[in-house]
Formats: sequence, C-alpha cells, structure tokens
Amino acid sequence: MARLLILGAGVMGSAIAVPAADNGHDVTLVGTHLDADIIAALKADRGGHPRLKAPIPETIKPLEIEALTSAEFQSADLVIIGVSSPGIDWATDKLLSHMPEPRPIALVTKGLQPWHGGLRSFAESVAAALAERGVTQQMVMGIGGPCIAKELADRQPTAVVFAGQDQAALRRIREMMQTDYYRVALSDDLDGVEICAALKNFLAIGVSAMWTRYKEINPQPNKPKAMNPGAAAFSQAVREMAGLARWFGGRPDTAYGLAGLGDLNVTVGGGRNSRLGFLLGEDMALKAALEGPLAGETVEGADTCLALASPVEKAFFASQLDPQDYPITRALIATIRDGKSLSIDFSAIDFA
Amino acid sequence: MARLLILGAGVMGSAIAVPAADNGHDVTLVGTHLDADIIAALKADRGGHPRLKAPIPETIKPLEIEALTSAEFQSADLVIIGVSSPGIDWATDKLLSHMPEPRPIALVTKGLQPWHGGLRSFAESVAAALAERGVTQQMVMGIGGPCIAKELADRQPTAVVFAGQDQAALRRIREMMQTDYYRVALSDDLDGVEICAALKNFLAIGVSAMWTRYKEINPQPNKPKAMNPGAAAFSQAVREMAGLARWFGGRPDTAYGLAGLGDLNVTVGGGRNSRLGFLLGEDMALKAALEGPLAGETVEGADTCLALASPVEKAFFASQLDPQDYPITRALIATIRDGKSLSIDFSAIDFA
Repeated sequence: MARLLILGAGVMGSAIAVPAADNGHDVTLVGTHLDADIIAALKADRGGHPRLKAPIPETIKPLEIEALTSAEFQSADLVIIGVSSPGIDWATDKLLSHMPEPRPIALVTKGLQPWHGGLRSFAESVAAALAERGVTQQMVMGIGGPCIAKELADRQPTAVVFAGQDQAALRRIREMMQTDYYRVALSDDLDGVEICAALKNFLAIGVSAMWTRYKEINPQPNKPKAMNPGAAAFSQAVREMAGLARWFGGRPDTAYGLAGLGDLNVTVGGGRNSRLGFLLGEDMALKAALEGPLAGETVEGADTCLALASPVEKAFFASQLDPQDYPITRALIATIRDGKSLSIDFSAIDFA
Repeated sequence: MARLLILGAGVMGSAIAVPAADNGHDVTLVGTHLDADIIAALKADRGGHPRLKAPIPETIKPLEIEALTSAEFQSADLVIIGVSSPGIDWATDKLLSHMPEPRPIALVTKGLQPWHGGLRSFAESVAAALAERGVTQQMVMGIGGPCIAKELADRQPTAVVFAGQDQAALRRIREMMQTDYYRVALSDDLDGVEICAALKNFLAIGVSAMWTRYKEINPQPNKPKAMNPGAAAFSQAVREMAGLARWFGGRPDTAYGLAGLGDLNVTVGGGRNSRLGFLLGEDMALKAALEGPLAGETVEGADTCLALASPVEKAFFASQLDPQDYPITRALIATIRDGKSLSIDFSAIDFA
C-alpha cells in the first residue's frame, strides 16, 4: 500500500483518486479554497461527489486545505497535482510551503507559461519553483492522454500516458496507479506530452469551429456538423501540434499518440474549449462568448493561446517556425488575442 | 477545358463531378445498371440528384450505361471510378470493354482484394486487369481523405489526397480538379493511401463500437457515447493503420495524415461502418445487425475485413506482423469473420 496526496478535489483530482483507491492505496484528497463545498459534501457522505455526480470509493480521505500540513507531504509516495490550470500557482505555493523534501510529483494539470520570452510547461515551472527553494525534484511527471474525469470516475476504460525522465520511477508509479480500466503507457518525452496536452485544448477550439462554421450550408436536422471541414481541420491540427511539439523540445511523434491525437479526439466535441469553438464558428465574438454562454467558466485553450501567442510569433519572425505551416494556430491567435472573427482559409492551407 | 468521364452516378461519383463542373470542364456522369433511376431523374431535371439531395451543376451530362461507347473513353482526359466498392468489378469490366487506349484513371472507390495469398488494392487490380489486355496504364491514381459526398456536393471545404507515382501527372489533375472548397494534397504513396482508405472503414467499426460498448455505465441523456474508450481506440486504430500500411508496402506516415487519421475521424460517427460498430458495441450479433437495421446496405468495412483476415493472419504466423500490436484488427476479424461477440480487451493493449 502506498500513500497518495492529491491536490485539488475538483473533477480531475477526484477522478484520478478512483484507480488509486481501487488499488488499495491510502489516498488523501485535498480541496482548494474553492473546493470547500466538495470536501464538506465528501465528509458528510464519502460515497458521493457533488460535481462528478459519481460515487467515489469511501476509502478516499477528504481533507480541507486548512488542515494540510507538512506531515501529509512527508508520508506521500506520490503527490498528484489535479487542480484546473488557473490553480497551478496555488498548488505550487502549497508545495513550497509544505514540502521541504522532494517527493515524486505527477501533474494532471496542464498549461503553458511565458518564460524568458519563450514558453515553459507547468511541469517545468513547478520543478523550477521548487529548485529555487533548494528542493531539487528528481521526479516531476506529466499525465496526458484522453481522459474525461467523469468517465474515469465511472471506471470506463481509459488509456493515458505517464511521461518523465526516470523510466524506473515511471514504472513504479504505473504499478501503483494502473488498473484493468485505467491503462498507462509510458513516455520519456515529458516536454512533448506537456505541450500536446496544453495544445489540444487550444487546437480543439479551432477544429470545433470548423464543425459549425459551415453547417448552415447543409442544414440537416440530424447532422448539425460539417464533417469534411472538421476532419480536414483535425488532421491539420495534429500536424501543427507535431510541429509545435518539436519546436518546444519534444518529439513530433508524441502528437501522433494518445497524448496528441487521442486527447484532441476526446476534446473536440465535448467540454468548454469545444463549446467556445462552436460559438466562434457561428461567428459569435470572443467577448460575447466568454461573457455570455461561457460566463464564469475556465476555457483553458484560450489561456494557452494568450501564453503561446507571442513566443510563437517570435519563432515565426526568427524562422524557427514557418507561419504557412500553422494556419489554425495563427487564426486562433488572431481571434483570441486580437479579437478578430475566426476565419481559417482552407484554400491557403498546404494539406498533407 | 478538359473532358472527364465518371463511372458511377451514386453519391460519391456525382459529388466529385461538382468541383470538376465548377472548373468549367465537360463532365459525363455514367450510371451503373443500379443507377438507372438517378440518370433518369438527372435527365428530367439536371439540377437535382435524388440520392445526394443536393443540386448539382446543370452542365454535368448524365449518361445511361447502355449509351456508353469507346468514344467517351477516347476523348476523356481523366476517367474517374466512383462506384461503391461492390461495383469495382463492374467498373473494371467497362474499362476492359471500352477503353482500348490508356487514359489517366482515378479511383475514388476503395477496397482490398485477396491476391496470391496476400492482398492488393483496387488500384492495383484495375491496373493489372488492363495490363492483361495489353493496356499498360501509366496513370492509375487513388483519391483518399475525409470526404462525405453530400458535403462535397454542397461545396463545403473538403481536403483530399491524390496519390500516384507520376507527380507531374498528379499536378495536372490537381490543376483540373482543385477549387476553393475542394483542396488537394499530393502523395507518391499510392499503396499507403489505398490501404488507409480501405482500413478506415474497417477500423471505424471497432472505434465506433467502443463508443457504445460502455455507455450504459454512464447513461447521461446528452452523452450517449463513452468518449475515453472511443478516444483510446481511435488512437490505437491509427497505430494499427500505420503498421498495416507499412506491411502493405506503403508508408506509415500516410496513416497520420488526411488519408489516415483524417478519414478515420470523419468515418467514425457517421455512415454505415460506424452504425455497424454502434450495434456491435451494444452486443447485437453481426448477422442480426446486417439482416436487421443495416439490411440491404453495403458495409464496406465488413467486406474489407473478409478480404484482409486471412492475409493478416498469415502475416502473424510468419512474424511479419506482431499480433500483440493489432488488438482492434484481431477483435474485428473474430467478430466479422468468425461471428464472435465484439470484445476489445483494453487491459491487454500496449498503448502509446
């Protein structure tokens, strides 16, 4: 039996607790200050999670953030960061204040941050923040791949990727986490998995927009989506993901696996990124979408866009990336950062 | 202005006539004996196509099969075979009886045929049949990529791949066919495009089945699909496609482009292959599905399965392919050829 400490009791942090608990581990689930209602509900009824709307194993121990001490970190065999992307600084702060000794850390949380005119992944920024405090992390791992939290909590077959540098440590953590329904592939391409996981939210906005942009041409009641433009955009989005992964220091082939096209497949057509895409495709302005149908929701792909826009444009100027190869990326930057109507000119794309 | 002769006036043959006619070419659309009603309808009203339910350009000339002569072949700059896969022998027969001189041929029709204990694509079998009659084809081209016929006929943005050995000829034919909405990528990997186009129907059955197999675990009214198993299967299906493309003599990277994952994306979730998958996922027996909800319909992926089952199993025995790498392929063979219940054991898959 191992001890796991999960930061973030939202849908993703809680869902990943399920396979760990099913494997008989001692799992502590720590709510953020925004999760107080969840922790209270779980304390009252261990079997129910108010946002997942799924029963979770009763052995999982809910913990209020106020009760979190260094002791939980000291005894943890694995710390999982499972907050949504805006919570990454909160989670890093908890590591800095409570984790004086290195523990293996796995990030489900995904995103990119501007850094020295370039970009870095959350995995890099967490490791760097700890290193500044003298805690040199030997094990910061990224978890990618297609995983809708509620389906994992329902124990539907789910295949993910654990990525990191230390393959022996990855294998130990896979041993800890893997179940019949939670299948784990291993990868040494941490940078690739991290950027693909962030980009899939971003690119899903563009692919989803192509489903709705053209549907009025073909208004069939049972088929509100334009599949040809969507599939062309999906294929192009995977190519852009592969090129951006390479530029970021990862491997292009990671974009062609679970963490890339697999996760993009699940993200297009469900969730907030996709809903933003549908609205932009219908020519709603970004501001109107974010203040209207999506008010109060975190659209992670839009945040990723704001983080990557300037570094990617610098790479265009420096001829590190050819703008011609990134039509969806450029169209999304023009819309999300610059407020323009979303327009992808298919006739200007050099398809393959 | 060029002259195009299209064999097959069903949805695909007719849809590809649209960009050709929009480019001002002289297009003759020949119905098979099963298309007599379509040709009669088009003769009565050039603007309407009874199965596409879309207006097609009035300049397209419908022609009954009985009226087809060698003269149409002699004057054709391009012959397009646009029948559905069971019609390939019919189309080959027309070429043999009416085309004494080589003309450039493009195949939209896709499938695999057993050949000398192995497999060959329709492009290969058409070229071989003509060669036996002394007509050595210098230009047999395959057209792949995500293209739902009705959407093309509605001029929705569509990106496809023209594949063949003669790149100069391919460029000429792209010049002939490409429009603002019909975008054409070129590839020299004819074998890869041909097998990917056939495999996508086959593999879509397996991916679609994973959408419905697990949905009862999570019966949400707005979400009848299990996305995690579907996305894991999608990612795995692309890997199997890449491996089978290599085995077939094509390039694995073709599976990662429009003709592979792009076409699989559009095929999963729409059409007859996908509907068969949904039914098999719900544990309906193959026979019940084909004689019930799908009675009278051509499920091309099932035919592809029957063609490839034995050659693929031989390749397993000969260690040309590792069975462990093809769990979806094996599960589909066990179901479609052997009548077993469709079961993909996720815990036995070595994901990546």
